[in-house]
Amino acid sequence: MEERVEISLLLDMYGELLTDKQKEIMYIYFNEDLSLSEISELTNTSRQAVHDTIKRCHKVLLDYESKLHLLEKANESKVAKNEILYCLNELKQKISDKDVLETVNNIENKLLNKF
Amino acid sequence: MEERVEISLLLDMYGELLTDKQKEIMYIYFNEDLSLSEISELTNTSRQAVHDTIKRCHKVLLDYESKLHLLEKANESKVAKNEILYCLNELKQKISDKDVLETVNNIENKLLNKF
Repeated sequence: MEERVEISLLLDMYGELLTDKQKEIMYIYFNEDLSLSEISELTNTSRQAVHDTIKRCHKVLLDYESKLHLLEKANESKVAKNEILYCLNELKQKISDKDVLETVNNIENKLLNKF
Repeated sequence: MEERVEISLLLDMYGELLTDKQKEIMYIYFNEDLSLSEISELTNTSRQAVHDTIKRCHKVLLDYESKLHLLEKANESKVAKNEILYCLNELKQKISDKDVLETVNNIENKLLNKF
């Protein structure tokens, strides 16, 4: 996975564990793709402090992931979810009974909305 | 949910974010149900320090949950998983085709093993 994308995903997982200031700087840097100088102006923080925050928070996010593995688990769940959706589609091709089809659609909706 | 059970579940979710010493004391207290004095002896820590660790870590675990909601999400997923398993069982009652049944069993296995 490209590092920038990975950090952006880690931010989605663990962003709430950062301080508001750290979160602000990290979100701007990784999701809005501004330069250090632009973020420095925008957040009223020195360029060096922005640089240090990004470096330190990157390490903190990787540390959380090494302990809780939320991103890894989310990726595994996504794969499993897609496999099940594929099987459900297979089922739909094989079924003609309206009542049975409704149950399959019900399962598909629950999977899409709740996982 | 009973507080003791809740803390034990929070420990499963966030235990890795505690220090080894904190983890040890919390696991013994909440999973093995020993008294403060027994834990004090077992971990070579003063009774007061054991008491303070449990109190502080309880707060830390609740704080993590208020930010990441992992236990809340796990409970929601469990409910959704059971609902889908129930629907899959319904499907099995309605299906006679062996090939279709195999696909349903395949879905059931993926759900049980990967979520």
